[in-house]
Amino acid sequence: MPKFMDVHDGMIGITADALLAAHQGDLAIQAEEGVDFQHAWADPASGKVFCLSEAPSAEAIQRIHTRNGIPPAEIHELTLEV
Amino acid sequence: MPKFMDVHDGMIGITADALLAAHQGDLAIQAEEGVDFQHAWADPASGKVFCLSEAPSAEAIQRIHTRNGIPPAEIHELTLEV
Repeated sequence: MPKFMDVHDGMIGITADALLAAHQGDLAIQAEEGVDFQHAWADPASGKVFCLSEAPSAEAIQRIHTRNGIPPAEIHELTLEV
Repeated sequence: MPKFMDVHDGMIGITADALLAAHQGDLAIQAEEGVDFQHAWADPASGKVFCLSEAPSAEAIQRIHTRNGIPPAEIHELTLEV
């Protein structure tokens, strides 16, 4: 299954509770698109959130995040890792 | 130890060998700044590379990556994760 990093902008001041709620919102519906959100990291100072997932396509991630109210600014397919 | 995600731009077409060589170059000198590069993911199509690390500061990461010839475009301190 392809791996992806998607990036959210503008989440300045995001709290631990808000990050958890957003992640749980994704988890609740991700199976409908075959997405597996594995990890999310946030920098509240810059407002960036990075989500690591496995998914059938970038579009599947876009649909789940958008339905959950947090459309990502970028989605990158990670074909290499070390 | 603080955790960071740094992001490189413009690495379009990066190969598995080049990613490994860059990562090994970081590992070879990271101890001089107390940095621990843990994982790197690349999207050769968009040219983005994401590096996850633990480090004493963003400046320490900047110095190691720059000495290794790959100064990052962005460095984000990840104070939240889920």
